[in-house]
Amino acid sequence: MKLTEAQLKQFDEQGWIFLPECFSAEEIAVLRAEAEKIFDEDREEVWREKSGAPRTAFAAHTYNDAFAILARHPRLIEPLEQLWGEKTYMHQFKVNAKAKFTGDVWQWHQDFGVWHRDDGMPEPRAMNISVFLDEVYPFNGPLMIVPKSHKHGVLEAGHDTSTTSYPLWTLDHETIRRMVAARGIVAPKGPAGSILLFHANLVHASPGNISPWDRTIVYVSLCHVENHIRRFKRPAWIAHRDFAPIRCLPDACLLELAVRAAE
Amino acid sequence: MKLTEAQLKQFDEQGWIFLPECFSAEEIAVLRAEAEKIFDEDREEVWREKSGAPRTAFAAHTYNDAFAILARHPRLIEPLEQLWGEKTYMHQFKVNAKAKFTGDVWQWHQDFGVWHRDDGMPEPRAMNISVFLDEVYPFNGPLMIVPKSHKHGVLEAGHDTSTTSYPLWTLDHETIRRMVAARGIVAPKGPAGSILLFHANLVHASPGNISPWDRTIVYVSLCHVENHIRRFKRPAWIAHRDFAPIRCLPDACLLELAVRAAE
Repeated sequence: MKLTEAQLKQFDEQGWIFLPECFSAEEIAVLRAEAEKIFDEDREEVWREKSGAPRTAFAAHTYNDAFAILARHPRLIEPLEQLWGEKTYMHQFKVNAKAKFTGDVWQWHQDFGVWHRDDGMPEPRAMNISVFLDEVYPFNGPLMIVPKSHKHGVLEAGHDTSTTSYPLWTLDHETIRRMVAARGIVAPKGPAGSILLFHANLVHASPGNISPWDRTIVYVSLCHVENHIRRFKRPAWIAHRDFAPIRCLPDACLLELAVRAAE
Repeated sequence: MKLTEAQLKQFDEQGWIFLPECFSAEEIAVLRAEAEKIFDEDREEVWREKSGAPRTAFAAHTYNDAFAILARHPRLIEPLEQLWGEKTYMHQFKVNAKAKFTGDVWQWHQDFGVWHRDDGMPEPRAMNISVFLDEVYPFNGPLMIVPKSHKHGVLEAGHDTSTTSYPLWTLDHETIRRMVAARGIVAPKGPAGSILLFHANLVHASPGNISPWDRTIVYVSLCHVENHIRRFKRPAWIAHRDFAPIRCLPDACLLELAVRAAE
Protein backbone atom coordinates (compact mmCIF):
# COMPACT_ATOMS: atom_id res chain seq x y z
CA MET A 1 0.00 0.00 0.00
CA LYS A 2 1.39 3.39 -1.04
CA LEU A 3 0.44 6.81 0.32
CA THR A 4 -0.52 9.51 -2.18
CA GLU A 5 1.28 12.86 -2.50
CA ALA A 6 -1.64 14.55 -0.74
CA GLN A 7 -1.43 12.07 2.16
CA LEU A 8 2.32 12.56 2.50
CA LYS A 9 1.76 16.33 2.56
CA GLN A 10 -0.96 16.03 5.21
CA PHE A 11 1.29 13.85 7.35
CA ASP A 12 4.10 16.36 7.14
CA GLU A 13 1.88 19.36 7.92
CA GLN A 14 -0.69 17.91 10.31
CA GLY A 15 1.19 14.96 11.81
CA TRP A 16 -1.51 12.38 11.08
CA ILE A 17 -3.41 10.56 8.31
CA PHE A 18 -6.69 8.64 8.71
CA LEU A 19 -7.51 5.80 6.30
CA PRO A 20 -11.05 4.44 6.77
CA GLU A 21 -11.74 0.73 6.31
CA CYS A 22 -8.21 -0.28 5.46
CA PHE A 23 -8.95 -3.82 6.68
CA SER A 24 -12.07 -5.83 5.85
CA ALA A 25 -14.68 -7.07 8.32
CA GLU A 26 -13.32 -10.64 7.94
CA GLU A 27 -9.77 -9.54 8.71
CA ILE A 28 -10.87 -7.56 11.75
CA ALA A 29 -13.15 -10.32 13.10
CA VAL A 30 -10.24 -12.71 13.57
CA LEU A 31 -8.17 -10.06 15.40
CA ARG A 32 -11.14 -9.06 17.58
CA ALA A 33 -11.72 -12.66 18.65
CA GLU A 34 -8.02 -13.17 19.44
CA ALA A 35 -7.93 -9.92 21.45
CA GLU A 36 -10.77 -11.19 23.66
CA LYS A 37 -8.84 -14.41 24.34
CA ILE A 38 -5.69 -12.47 25.24
CA PHE A 39 -7.55 -10.13 27.61
CA ASP A 40 -8.83 -13.19 29.49
CA GLU A 41 -5.30 -14.49 30.02
CA ASP A 42 -3.45 -14.02 33.26
CA ARG A 43 -0.01 -12.94 32.00
CA GLU A 44 2.40 -10.12 32.81
CA GLU A 45 1.96 -8.48 29.39
CA VAL A 46 -1.73 -7.84 30.10
CA TRP A 47 -2.21 -4.71 32.24
CA ARG A 48 -5.51 -4.05 33.94
CA GLU A 49 -7.39 -0.89 34.94
CA LYS A 50 -7.78 -0.08 38.63
CA SER A 51 -11.26 -1.64 38.17
CA GLY A 52 -9.73 -4.94 36.99
CA ALA A 53 -10.95 -4.54 33.38
CA PRO A 54 -8.26 -5.11 30.72
CA ARG A 55 -6.33 -1.95 29.76
CA THR A 56 -3.61 -3.06 27.37
CA ALA A 57 -1.92 -6.25 26.18
CA PHE A 58 1.73 -5.66 25.29
CA ALA A 59 3.72 -7.62 22.68
CA ALA A 60 0.72 -9.65 21.53
CA HIS A 61 2.57 -10.29 18.27
CA THR A 62 5.10 -12.40 20.17
CA TYR A 63 2.58 -14.91 21.59
CA ASN A 64 -0.41 -14.78 19.22
CA ASP A 65 -0.40 -15.91 15.58
CA ALA A 66 -3.00 -13.42 14.32
CA PHE A 67 -1.21 -10.42 15.81
CA ALA A 68 2.15 -11.79 14.59
CA ILE A 69 0.69 -11.57 11.08
CA LEU A 70 -0.67 -8.05 11.66
CA ALA A 71 2.79 -6.95 12.85
CA ARG A 72 4.20 -7.82 9.40
CA HIS A 73 1.25 -6.61 7.34
CA PRO A 74 2.23 -4.59 4.24
CA ARG A 75 -0.67 -2.17 4.71
CA LEU A 76 1.03 -1.01 7.92
CA ILE A 77 4.71 -1.40 7.10
CA GLU A 78 4.99 -0.23 3.46
CA PRO A 79 3.70 3.34 4.02
CA LEU A 80 6.48 3.89 6.56
CA GLU A 81 9.18 2.48 4.32
CA GLN A 82 7.88 4.85 1.66
CA LEU A 83 7.93 7.79 4.07
CA TRP A 84 11.41 7.16 5.45
CA GLY A 85 13.02 5.41 2.51
CA GLU A 86 14.35 2.95 5.08
CA LYS A 87 13.41 -0.26 6.82
CA THR A 88 11.58 -0.20 10.16
CA TYR A 89 11.56 -2.35 13.29
CA MET A 90 8.82 -2.86 15.88
CA HIS A 91 9.47 -0.75 18.98
CA GLN A 92 6.18 -1.45 20.75
CA PHE A 93 3.01 -3.39 19.97
CA LYS A 94 -0.06 -3.17 22.13
CA VAL A 95 -3.76 -3.97 22.04
CA ASN A 96 -5.59 -1.30 24.02
CA ALA A 97 -9.00 -2.36 25.31
CA LYS A 98 -10.78 0.76 26.62
CA ALA A 99 -13.58 -1.57 27.70
CA LYS A 100 -17.23 -0.47 27.65
CA PHE A 101 -18.46 1.23 30.86
CA THR A 102 -15.06 1.05 32.59
CA GLY A 103 -12.22 1.96 30.17
CA ASP A 104 -9.99 4.57 31.80
CA VAL A 105 -8.29 7.64 30.34
CA TRP A 106 -4.85 7.93 28.74
CA GLN A 107 -3.58 11.32 29.87
CA TRP A 108 -2.09 13.89 27.43
CA HIS A 109 1.35 12.83 26.21
CA GLN A 110 3.74 12.42 23.30
CA ASP A 111 4.87 8.86 22.66
CA PHE A 112 8.37 9.90 21.65
CA GLY A 113 8.63 11.81 24.92
CA VAL A 114 8.17 8.49 26.71
CA TRP A 115 10.41 6.48 24.35
CA HIS A 116 13.17 9.08 24.53
CA ARG A 117 13.15 9.45 28.31
CA ASP A 118 12.54 5.81 29.24
CA ASP A 119 14.15 3.90 26.38
CA GLY A 120 16.83 6.24 25.01
CA MET A 121 15.35 6.42 21.50
CA PRO A 122 17.57 9.08 19.85
CA GLU A 123 15.21 10.85 17.45
CA PRO A 124 11.49 11.06 16.67
CA ARG A 125 11.88 8.97 13.51
CA ALA A 126 9.10 6.70 14.76
CA MET A 127 5.38 6.49 14.28
CA ASN A 128 2.20 4.98 15.64
CA ILE A 129 -0.34 3.22 13.55
CA SER A 130 -3.62 2.54 15.30
CA VAL A 131 -5.84 -0.17 13.87
CA PHE A 132 -9.49 0.06 14.96
CA LEU A 133 -10.85 -3.35 15.98
CA ASP A 134 -14.20 -1.73 16.96
CA GLU A 135 -16.07 1.16 15.45
CA VAL A 136 -14.91 4.38 17.10
CA TYR A 137 -17.80 6.68 18.02
CA PRO A 138 -17.75 10.12 19.65
CA PHE A 139 -18.88 8.31 22.82
CA ASN A 140 -16.52 5.36 23.39
CA GLY A 141 -13.29 7.16 24.17
CA PRO A 142 -11.90 8.22 20.78
CA LEU A 143 -8.27 9.25 20.52
CA MET A 144 -7.96 13.07 20.72
CA ILE A 145 -5.00 14.49 18.80
CA VAL A 146 -3.63 18.03 18.60
CA PRO A 147 -2.90 18.66 14.90
CA LYS A 148 0.55 20.06 14.05
CA SER A 149 1.77 19.53 17.61
CA HIS A 150 4.53 17.26 16.22
CA LYS A 151 6.26 20.45 15.02
CA HIS A 152 7.03 21.52 18.59
CA GLY A 153 9.67 18.92 19.49
CA VAL A 154 9.72 17.13 22.82
CA LEU A 155 7.69 19.10 25.33
CA GLU A 156 8.38 19.15 29.06
CA ALA A 157 6.63 16.34 30.90
CA GLY A 158 6.20 14.86 34.36
CA HIS A 159 6.17 11.17 35.28
CA ASP A 160 2.56 10.29 36.17
CA THR A 161 2.36 7.14 38.26
CA SER A 162 -0.94 7.86 40.02
CA THR A 163 -3.87 8.86 37.79
CA THR A 164 -4.03 5.57 35.84
CA SER A 165 -2.69 2.05 36.33
CA TYR A 166 0.12 2.56 33.75
CA PRO A 167 3.07 4.98 34.36
CA LEU A 168 3.44 7.62 31.66
CA TRP A 169 5.35 10.86 30.97
CA THR A 170 2.43 13.30 30.74
CA LEU A 171 2.23 16.97 29.72
CA ASP A 172 1.18 19.64 32.19
CA HIS A 173 -2.15 21.49 32.00
CA GLU A 174 -0.67 24.82 30.90
CA THR A 175 1.15 23.19 27.96
CA ILE A 176 -2.06 21.48 26.84
CA ARG A 177 -4.10 24.66 27.26
CA ARG A 178 -1.61 26.54 25.08
CA MET A 179 -1.27 23.84 22.39
CA VAL A 180 -5.03 23.29 22.08
CA ALA A 181 -5.74 27.05 22.01
CA ALA A 182 -3.38 27.29 19.02
CA ARG A 183 -4.15 24.03 17.22
CA GLY A 184 -7.51 22.64 18.42
CA ILE A 185 -8.40 18.98 18.87
CA VAL A 186 -9.30 16.38 16.25
CA ALA A 187 -10.76 12.94 17.02
CA PRO A 188 -10.80 10.64 13.97
CA LYS A 189 -13.78 8.28 14.10
CA GLY A 190 -14.82 5.46 11.80
CA PRO A 191 -15.69 1.82 11.37
CA ALA A 192 -13.62 -1.13 12.53
CA GLY A 193 -10.77 -1.72 10.09
CA SER A 194 -9.87 1.96 9.81
CA ILE A 195 -6.29 2.99 10.57
CA LEU A 196 -4.75 6.19 11.89
CA LEU A 197 -1.06 6.96 11.33
CA PHE A 198 0.40 9.61 13.61
CA HIS A 199 3.81 11.08 14.31
CA ALA A 200 5.65 10.00 17.46
CA ASN A 201 5.68 13.63 18.69
CA LEU A 202 1.97 14.28 18.14
CA VAL A 203 0.28 15.32 21.40
CA HIS A 204 -2.67 13.02 22.18
CA ALA A 205 -4.91 11.62 24.91
CA SER A 206 -8.11 9.61 25.18
CA PRO A 207 -11.00 10.01 27.61
CA GLY A 208 -12.66 7.26 29.62
CA ASN A 209 -15.38 5.10 28.09
CA ILE A 210 -18.73 4.90 29.94
CA SER A 211 -20.62 4.00 26.74
CA PRO A 212 -21.94 0.46 26.19
CA TRP A 213 -19.48 -0.02 23.28
CA ASP A 214 -15.97 -1.47 23.56
CA ARG A 215 -13.22 0.49 21.81
CA THR A 216 -10.36 -1.91 21.12
CA ILE A 217 -7.46 -0.44 19.14
CA VAL A 218 -4.11 -2.02 18.21
CA TYR A 219 -1.19 0.41 18.48
CA VAL A 220 1.72 -0.56 16.27
CA SER A 221 4.76 1.61 17.05
CA LEU A 222 7.36 1.46 14.32
CA CYS A 223 10.84 2.95 14.39
CA HIS A 224 13.52 3.58 11.77
CA VAL A 225 16.05 0.71 12.16
CA GLU A 226 19.00 3.06 12.75
CA ASN A 227 17.01 4.93 15.39
CA HIS A 228 16.71 1.92 17.71
CA ILE A 229 16.58 2.40 21.46
CA ARG A 230 19.83 2.60 23.47
CA ARG A 231 18.54 2.03 26.99
CA PHE A 232 17.02 -1.22 28.26
CA LYS A 233 15.31 -0.09 31.45
CA ARG A 234 11.80 -1.29 30.69
CA PRO A 235 10.94 -4.95 30.06
CA ALA A 236 11.65 -6.19 26.52
CA TRP A 237 7.90 -6.85 26.05
CA ILE A 238 7.25 -3.09 26.52
CA ALA A 239 10.26 -1.70 24.60
CA HIS A 240 11.43 -4.33 22.15
CA ARG A 241 15.09 -5.17 21.56
CA ASP A 242 14.80 -6.97 18.23
CA PHE A 243 15.99 -4.28 15.83
CA ALA A 244 15.89 -6.50 12.73
CA PRO A 245 14.06 -4.90 9.80
CA ILE A 246 10.48 -6.15 9.44
CA ARG A 247 9.94 -8.34 6.40
CA CYS A 248 6.42 -7.88 5.09
CA LEU A 249 4.06 -10.77 4.42
CA PRO A 250 1.82 -10.84 1.32
CA ASP A 251 -1.23 -8.57 1.38
CA ALA A 252 -3.60 -11.54 1.72
CA CYS A 253 -1.90 -12.88 4.88
CA LEU A 254 -4.59 -11.87 7.33
CA LEU A 255 -7.49 -12.73 5.07
CA GLU A 256 -6.04 -16.23 4.57
CA LEU A 257 -5.85 -16.67 8.33
CA ALA A 258 -9.47 -15.53 8.62
CA VAL A 259 -10.54 -18.03 5.96
CA ARG A 260 -8.65 -20.85 7.73
CA ALA A 261 -10.20 -19.83 11.08
CA ALA A 262 -13.70 -19.98 9.55
CA GLU A 263 -13.17 -23.47 8.12
CA MET B 1 -41.03 32.24 25.97
CA LYS B 2 -43.40 29.75 24.35
CA LEU B 3 -42.55 26.42 22.73
CA THR B 4 -43.80 25.77 19.21
CA GLU B 5 -46.06 22.86 18.26
CA ALA B 6 -43.06 21.12 16.68
CA GLN B 7 -41.05 21.52 19.89
CA LEU B 8 -43.88 20.18 22.03
CA LYS B 9 -44.17 17.18 19.68
CA GLN B 10 -40.42 16.54 19.85
CA PHE B 11 -40.46 16.69 23.63
CA ASP B 12 -43.32 14.19 23.80
CA GLU B 13 -41.72 11.78 21.31
CA GLN B 14 -38.01 12.17 22.04
CA GLY B 15 -38.02 13.37 25.65
CA TRP B 16 -35.82 16.43 25.04
CA ILE B 17 -35.58 19.79 23.25
CA PHE B 18 -32.40 21.78 22.60
CA LEU B 19 -32.60 25.58 22.24
CA PRO B 20 -29.26 27.13 21.17
CA GLU B 21 -28.25 30.55 22.50
CA CYS B 22 -31.33 31.13 24.61
CA PHE B 23 -29.32 33.49 26.84
CA SER B 24 -26.94 36.20 25.61
CA ALA B 25 -23.19 36.39 26.23
CA GLU B 26 -23.78 39.23 28.74
CA GLU B 27 -26.33 37.22 30.70
CA ILE B 28 -24.06 34.16 30.80
CA ALA B 29 -20.93 36.12 31.77
CA VAL B 30 -22.45 37.23 35.06
CA LEU B 31 -23.55 33.67 35.92
CA ARG B 32 -20.15 32.26 34.95
CA ALA B 33 -18.34 34.71 37.22
CA GLU B 34 -20.66 33.97 40.13
CA ALA B 35 -20.21 30.20 39.63
CA GLU B 36 -16.43 30.60 39.99
CA LYS B 37 -16.91 32.47 43.27
CA ILE B 38 -19.24 29.78 44.60
CA PHE B 39 -16.87 26.93 43.66
CA ASP B 40 -14.15 28.65 45.70
CA GLU B 41 -16.35 28.74 48.80
CA ASP B 42 -16.00 26.21 51.56
CA ARG B 43 -19.66 25.34 52.26
CA GLU B 44 -21.64 22.11 52.61
CA GLU B 45 -23.63 22.73 49.41
CA VAL B 46 -20.44 22.56 47.31
CA TRP B 47 -19.45 18.94 46.60
CA ARG B 48 -16.00 18.12 45.33
CA GLU B 49 -14.56 15.37 43.12
CA LYS B 50 -12.26 12.80 44.65
CA SER B 51 -9.47 15.01 43.20
CA GLY B 52 -10.71 18.04 45.19
CA ALA B 53 -11.94 19.92 42.08
CA PRO B 54 -15.49 21.30 42.38
CA ARG B 55 -18.19 18.86 41.22
CA THR B 56 -21.50 20.53 41.99
CA ALA B 57 -22.90 23.44 43.99
CA PHE B 58 -26.40 22.73 45.28
CA ALA B 59 -29.09 25.34 45.93
CA ALA B 60 -27.00 28.24 44.61
CA HIS B 61 -30.27 30.16 44.08
CA THR B 62 -30.71 30.33 47.85
CA TYR B 63 -27.41 32.10 48.60
CA ASN B 64 -26.46 33.89 45.35
CA ASP B 65 -28.38 36.79 43.77
CA ALA B 66 -27.57 35.96 40.14
CA PHE B 67 -28.70 32.34 40.46
CA ALA B 68 -31.78 33.46 42.44
CA ILE B 69 -32.74 35.49 39.35
CA LEU B 70 -32.04 32.58 36.99
CA ALA B 71 -34.28 30.34 39.12
CA ARG B 72 -37.24 32.65 38.36
CA HIS B 73 -36.36 33.35 34.74
CA PRO B 74 -39.36 33.23 32.37
CA ARG B 75 -37.29 31.57 29.62
CA LEU B 76 -36.98 28.54 31.91
CA ILE B 77 -40.29 28.56 33.78
CA GLU B 78 -42.85 29.54 31.14
CA PRO B 79 -42.24 26.60 28.77
CA LEU B 80 -43.05 24.21 31.61
CA GLU B 81 -46.20 26.04 32.64
CA GLN B 82 -47.20 25.81 28.98
CA LEU B 83 -46.42 22.09 28.85
CA TRP B 84 -48.21 21.15 32.06
CA GLY B 85 -50.86 23.88 32.19
CA GLU B 86 -49.91 24.22 35.86
CA LYS B 87 -47.50 26.07 38.10
CA THR B 88 -44.12 24.55 39.00
CA TYR B 89 -41.84 24.61 42.02
CA MET B 90 -38.07 24.16 42.26
CA HIS B 91 -37.19 20.62 43.36
CA GLN B 92 -33.43 20.88 42.86
CA PHE B 93 -31.00 23.52 41.59
CA LYS B 94 -27.36 22.78 40.97
CA VAL B 95 -24.33 24.21 39.19
CA ASN B 96 -22.27 21.30 37.84
CA ALA B 97 -18.64 22.14 37.19
CA LYS B 98 -17.07 19.25 35.24
CA ALA B 99 -13.79 21.13 35.49
CA LYS B 100 -11.18 20.99 32.74
CA PHE B 101 -8.67 18.10 33.01
CA THR B 102 -10.29 16.61 36.15
CA GLY B 103 -14.12 16.65 35.86
CA ASP B 104 -15.44 13.20 36.73
CA VAL B 105 -18.25 11.13 35.18
CA TRP B 106 -21.94 11.08 36.09
CA GLN B 107 -22.95 7.45 35.66
CA TRP B 108 -26.06 6.40 33.67
CA HIS B 109 -29.26 7.25 35.54
CA GLN B 110 -32.78 8.69 35.41
CA ASP B 111 -33.33 11.71 37.64
CA PHE B 112 -36.87 10.71 38.50
CA GLY B 113 -35.56 7.30 39.59
CA VAL B 114 -33.48 9.14 42.20
CA TRP B 115 -36.21 11.62 43.20
CA HIS B 116 -38.81 8.85 43.50
CA ARG B 117 -36.65 6.50 45.56
CA ASP B 118 -34.89 9.08 47.74
CA ASP B 119 -37.47 11.87 48.00
CA GLY B 120 -40.83 10.16 47.49
CA MET B 121 -41.76 12.23 44.42
CA PRO B 122 -44.99 10.53 43.29
CA GLU B 123 -44.92 10.86 39.49
CA PRO B 124 -42.47 11.87 36.74
CA ARG B 125 -44.22 15.19 36.19
CA ALA B 126 -40.87 16.92 36.54
CA MET B 127 -38.16 18.11 34.20
CA ASN B 128 -34.57 19.21 33.97
CA ILE B 129 -33.45 22.30 32.18
CA SER B 130 -29.72 22.55 31.67
CA VAL B 131 -28.26 25.98 30.99
CA PHE B 132 -24.80 25.92 29.37
CA LEU B 133 -22.45 28.41 31.05
CA ASP B 134 -19.59 27.23 28.80
CA GLU B 135 -19.57 26.06 25.21
CA VAL B 136 -20.17 22.33 25.14
CA TYR B 137 -17.82 20.52 22.73
CA PRO B 138 -17.58 16.83 21.87
CA PHE B 139 -14.48 16.79 24.09
CA ASN B 140 -15.41 18.42 27.42
CA GLY B 141 -17.83 15.87 28.81
CA PRO B 142 -21.13 16.59 27.01
CA LEU B 143 -24.34 15.16 28.43
CA MET B 144 -25.22 11.90 26.65
CA ILE B 145 -28.95 11.19 26.46
CA VAL B 146 -30.85 8.15 25.22
CA PRO B 147 -33.72 9.51 23.09
CA LYS B 148 -37.21 8.13 23.83
CA SER B 149 -35.99 6.39 26.99
CA HIS B 150 -38.52 8.44 29.00
CA LYS B 151 -41.21 6.15 27.55
CA HIS B 152 -39.94 3.18 29.56
CA GLY B 153 -40.98 4.28 33.06
CA VAL B 154 -38.70 3.92 36.07
CA LEU B 155 -36.02 1.34 35.32
CA GLU B 156 -34.38 -0.86 37.92
CA ALA B 157 -31.37 0.78 39.54
CA GLY B 158 -28.72 0.18 42.17
CA HIS B 159 -27.42 2.69 44.71
CA ASP B 160 -23.89 3.65 43.60
CA THR B 161 -21.88 5.11 46.46
CA SER B 162 -18.41 4.21 45.18
CA THR B 163 -17.61 5.21 41.56
CA THR B 164 -17.95 8.97 42.11
CA SER B 165 -18.03 11.31 45.11
CA TYR B 166 -21.84 11.75 44.93
CA PRO B 167 -24.27 8.85 45.71
CA LEU B 168 -26.68 8.11 42.86
CA TRP B 169 -29.23 5.46 41.81
CA THR B 170 -27.56 4.17 38.64
CA LEU B 171 -28.73 1.79 35.91
CA ASP B 172 -26.99 -1.53 35.32
CA HIS B 173 -24.86 -2.26 32.25
CA GLU B 174 -27.32 -4.68 30.66
CA THR B 175 -30.15 -2.11 30.84
CA ILE B 176 -27.95 0.53 29.21
CA ARG B 177 -26.73 -1.89 26.54
CA ARG B 178 -30.35 -2.74 25.68
CA MET B 179 -31.65 0.87 25.73
CA VAL B 180 -28.77 2.23 23.63
CA ALA B 181 -29.00 -0.65 21.12
CA ALA B 182 -32.65 0.30 20.59
CA ARG B 183 -32.45 4.10 20.82
CA GLY B 184 -28.84 5.24 20.32
CA ILE B 185 -27.15 8.16 22.06
CA VAL B 186 -27.47 11.89 21.38
CA ALA B 187 -25.17 14.56 22.86
CA PRO B 188 -26.46 18.10 22.26
CA LYS B 189 -23.58 20.54 21.86
CA GLY B 190 -23.54 24.29 21.41
CA PRO B 191 -22.38 27.68 22.63
CA ALA B 192 -22.74 29.04 26.15
CA GLY B 193 -26.29 30.28 26.68
CA SER B 194 -27.91 27.25 25.03
CA ILE B 195 -30.47 25.29 27.03
CA LEU B 196 -31.55 21.65 26.99
CA LEU B 197 -34.94 20.61 28.40
CA PHE B 198 -35.27 16.91 29.19
CA HIS B 199 -37.84 14.67 30.79
CA ALA B 200 -37.21 13.45 34.35
CA ASN B 201 -37.25 9.83 33.13
CA LEU B 202 -34.79 10.33 30.28
CA VAL B 203 -31.74 8.05 30.67
CA HIS B 204 -28.53 10.07 30.66
CA ALA B 205 -24.87 10.18 31.73
CA SER B 206 -21.80 12.31 31.12
CA PRO B 207 -18.18 11.23 30.67
CA GLY B 208 -15.16 12.71 32.40
CA ASN B 209 -13.48 15.84 31.06
CA ILE B 210 -9.74 15.68 30.29
CA SER B 211 -9.95 18.53 27.78
CA PRO B 212 -8.54 22.00 28.58
CA TRP B 213 -12.08 23.46 28.55
CA ASP B 214 -14.37 23.78 31.57
CA ARG B 215 -17.94 22.58 31.06
CA THR B 216 -20.12 24.33 33.64
CA ILE B 217 -23.84 23.64 33.35
CA VAL B 218 -26.70 24.77 35.62
CA TYR B 219 -29.34 22.07 36.16
CA VAL B 220 -32.71 23.49 37.07
CA SER B 221 -35.08 20.69 38.14
CA LEU B 222 -38.70 21.80 38.11
CA CYS B 223 -41.68 19.84 39.38
CA HIS B 224 -45.44 20.22 39.03
CA VAL B 225 -46.64 21.83 42.31
CA GLU B 226 -49.08 19.00 43.12
CA ASN B 227 -46.34 16.44 42.53
CA HIS B 228 -44.16 17.69 45.38
CA ILE B 229 -41.95 15.28 47.30
CA ARG B 230 -43.36 13.39 50.29
CA ARG B 231 -40.17 12.19 51.96
CA PHE B 232 -37.58 14.44 53.60
CA LYS B 233 -34.59 12.12 53.90
CA ARG B 234 -32.03 14.21 52.04
CA PRO B 235 -30.98 17.72 53.14
CA ALA B 236 -33.37 20.53 52.12
CA TRP B 237 -30.59 22.05 49.99
CA ILE B 238 -30.54 18.87 47.86
CA ALA B 239 -34.30 18.18 47.71
CA HIS B 240 -36.15 21.44 48.35
CA ARG B 241 -39.22 21.70 50.60
CA ASP B 242 -40.57 25.03 49.42
CA PHE B 243 -43.44 23.92 47.21
CA ALA B 244 -44.74 27.42 46.50
CA PRO B 245 -45.35 28.10 42.79
CA ILE B 246 -42.48 30.01 41.16
CA ARG B 247 -43.40 33.58 40.22
CA CYS B 248 -41.47 34.61 37.10
CA LEU B 249 -39.44 37.79 36.90
CA PRO B 250 -39.49 40.00 33.76
CA ASP B 251 -37.52 38.71 30.78
CA ALA B 252 -34.84 41.41 31.21
CA CYS B 253 -34.09 40.45 34.84
CA LEU B 254 -30.73 38.81 34.18
CA LEU B 255 -29.61 41.33 31.58
CA GLU B 256 -30.33 44.17 34.03
CA LEU B 257 -28.19 42.44 36.65
CA ALA B 258 -25.40 42.06 34.06
CA VAL B 259 -25.62 45.76 33.21
CA ARG B 260 -25.49 46.71 36.90
CA ALA B 261 -22.52 44.35 37.44
CA ALA B 262 -20.64 45.99 34.56
CA GLU B 263 -21.19 49.52 35.92
